[in-house]
Amino acid sequence: MTLEEIRRRIDEIDGKLLPLFLARMDCAREVAAVKKEAGLPVLNAGREQEILDRVASCAGEYGGAARVLYATLMEVSRGLQHQILHSGAALRAQIEAAQLPPAEPGRVATFGRPGSFSHKAADVLFPGCTPVSFNSFAEIFRAVDEGSASFGVLPVENSSAGSVGEVYDLILRYRFYIVGAETLGVRHCLAARTGAQPRRVISHPQALAQCSRRIAELGLTAEPCETTAEAAVKAASLPDAAAICSEDAARAAGLEVLERGIQNTENNCTRFITISRALYIPEGADKISLCFSLPHVTGSLHGVLSRFAQAGLNLTKIESRPIPGRRFEYDFYLDFTGSVRDEQTLALLASLSEELPRFSFLGNYTERE
Amino acid sequence: MTLEEIRRRIDEIDGKLLPLFLARMDCAREVAAVKKEAGLPVLNAGREQEILDRVASCAGEYGGAARVLYATLMEVSRGLQHQILHSGAALRAQIEAAQLPPAEPGRVATFGRPGSFSHKAADVLFPGCTPVSFNSFAEIFRAVDEGSASFGVLPVENSSAGSVGEVYDLILRYRFYIVGAETLGVRHCLAARTGAQPRRVISHPQALAQCSRRIAELGLTAEPCETTAEAAVKAASLPDAAAICSEDAARAAGLEVLERGIQNTENNCTRFITISRALYIPEGADKISLCFSLPHVTGSLHGVLSRFAQAGLNLTKIESRPIPGRRFEYDFYLDFTGSVRDEQTLALLASLSEELPRFSFLGNYTERE
Repeated sequence: MTLEEIRRRIDEIDGKLLPLFLARMDCAREVAAVKKEAGLPVLNAGREQEILDRVASCAGEYGGAARVLYATLMEVSRGLQHQILHSGAALRAQIEAAQLPPAEPGRVATFGRPGSFSHKAADVLFPGCTPVSFNSFAEIFRAVDEGSASFGVLPVENSSAGSVGEVYDLILRYRFYIVGAETLGVRHCLAARTGAQPRRVISHPQALAQCSRRIAELGLTAEPCETTAEAAVKAASLPDAAAICSEDAARAAGLEVLERGIQNTENNCTRFITISRALYIPEGADKISLCFSLPHVTGSLHGVLSRFAQAGLNLTKIESRPIPGRRFEYDFYLDFTGSVRDEQTLALLASLSEELPRFSFLGNYTERE
Repeated sequence: MTLEEIRRRIDEIDGKLLPLFLARMDCAREVAAVKKEAGLPVLNAGREQEILDRVASCAGEYGGAARVLYATLMEVSRGLQHQILHSGAALRAQIEAAQLPPAEPGRVATFGRPGSFSHKAADVLFPGCTPVSFNSFAEIFRAVDEGSASFGVLPVENSSAGSVGEVYDLILRYRFYIVGAETLGVRHCLAARTGAQPRRVISHPQALAQCSRRIAELGLTAEPCETTAEAAVKAASLPDAAAICSEDAARAAGLEVLERGIQNTENNCTRFITISRALYIPEGADKISLCFSLPHVTGSLHGVLSRFAQAGLNLTKIESRPIPGRRFEYDFYLDFTGSVRDEQTLALLASLSEELPRFSFLGNYTERE
């Protein structure tokens, strides 16, 4: 047979497959109606496993492929059933109670001294606010937890140094809402007091990582400290040290700028998020974050991602983090584009909230770039 | 209809679906034969998109679900074609050239001074070796790159503090092989010189994160430094500081152990890996690591994971890291259980090596726990 002939045969098969698939989805719809009446749960793991084992054994050498296909079939059927059953009442109520962000933000907690990149991000996210400064991410979460700040602004990811793991761990621990996000271009400078002969360079570990190439070229010893702005203040009293910080922070500490733009890549950006104990969803919110854990089963992540694909949602970030105190069990953290004001997207979240252990909806916000 | 009746109808539909699916897989097999003859590539993105658009428009309200189902169908067909075409000659050659690990390891580079947890891990992975000490992860990669060490032993993940992001970034940059892995229980102690009155506590940022709860209880200020063993040495000359380190490191620096087991969770473990420029695959290797990047397309990660599910492989870790210098484009890093000595698994890797940008096979090794 020629390629054309085989393709015509495939099209023919697909033509017969599709009506069967649609009939199967209609059945799923009827199952949902019966389950609603009887108050039965959507998932029947025993029956699903039975079907998978049966088709795998009938499919011979195509067993693995058949298993994936039928798992996908059942995954999308379950998605449909949840939509019909309007599952996830608790999550739906939680989202319905969301408010628009307040006109006056109140106290905003952020990282480092004035002049730090986090302060700049806070100023973009809350124009005109006077941020309260903290020297650790954990203290910002504590301030929001105790109510001494309404919002916290924190870095979560840098385009060259990667995710700020500690912040993701704090998000997973506190389960606050993410109510805003902003990506800022970050240009680092090397600064020291006038006349200094730097043999070492002080900065936040993320900034040291972002400038690792230039540090190696200059033969400097890298020394971590709490924040970039703190580094500038420390370097001001040391004759043998330089700091990596923003130009504002260097100026504030009275340092001389030795080099500008010393980060490894020209295109160095950091993504900051705003956290809050209250759920605010702005008009036009286009990014959703959530987290959950998954059993260590072949294809479990694949199954969940089928549901996102079914809803046409585009994943922009996935991160797995060990659950503290359990031996390498993982929480997954996901970002994707979408709005909970779209019923299909809300139905997806609502159904996952019923199916997945340790599920939290973390927010729906505007991603500024 | 009762649930029983609907289920019988579903079973009936499934009974008709399966032979069509098997016939479609047979067609994929014939397509592979024709493509082999004509030297054509497996992926025909244009034709796949056409099929997806057609079924989605025919499926009406089930459009999203139909798209997922057919994307999965085409994904498993492509998997089969690659298997028949014996794709990925370069990767197959690379894996065929792998050797068994040498009896004598030569020089092993590791992190921190003797007494550090990395030294302990090196001793388990290479019994009797005398490791060469380095104070940064980057220096260990450089030593292996220049050949001044044959192997490097590094921490990659802790059960409570999460992934060591910098090490993942170095793996993605150097693309060395991972040739071994070991999980060690890690018990930290708080130590200071005799008579000291600690107001601050010095340690590696990971150790500070792992002991964050006790540090907060004691009201100590956390100060990052290069390694836990270095922290012990520093604390030995300070009247107001304690160190968090191993008991061995405390003893080596002449410190008094104030508290034992101060980490947040009793079950605190760290996973260490061995890196090498040469590919060694031990007998009984059961863990595979690889990395690749993905286009930002709905369902692209879902598609790749279908192939792992098809091969029955169990994902144990997934990590996305931004590609340096590109604005939030991601490399994915994956661990899963399996052996390249299994032809189906090798075929999967070989096909992904042809389909995915920035793909690297990172090793097949024994995971010790």
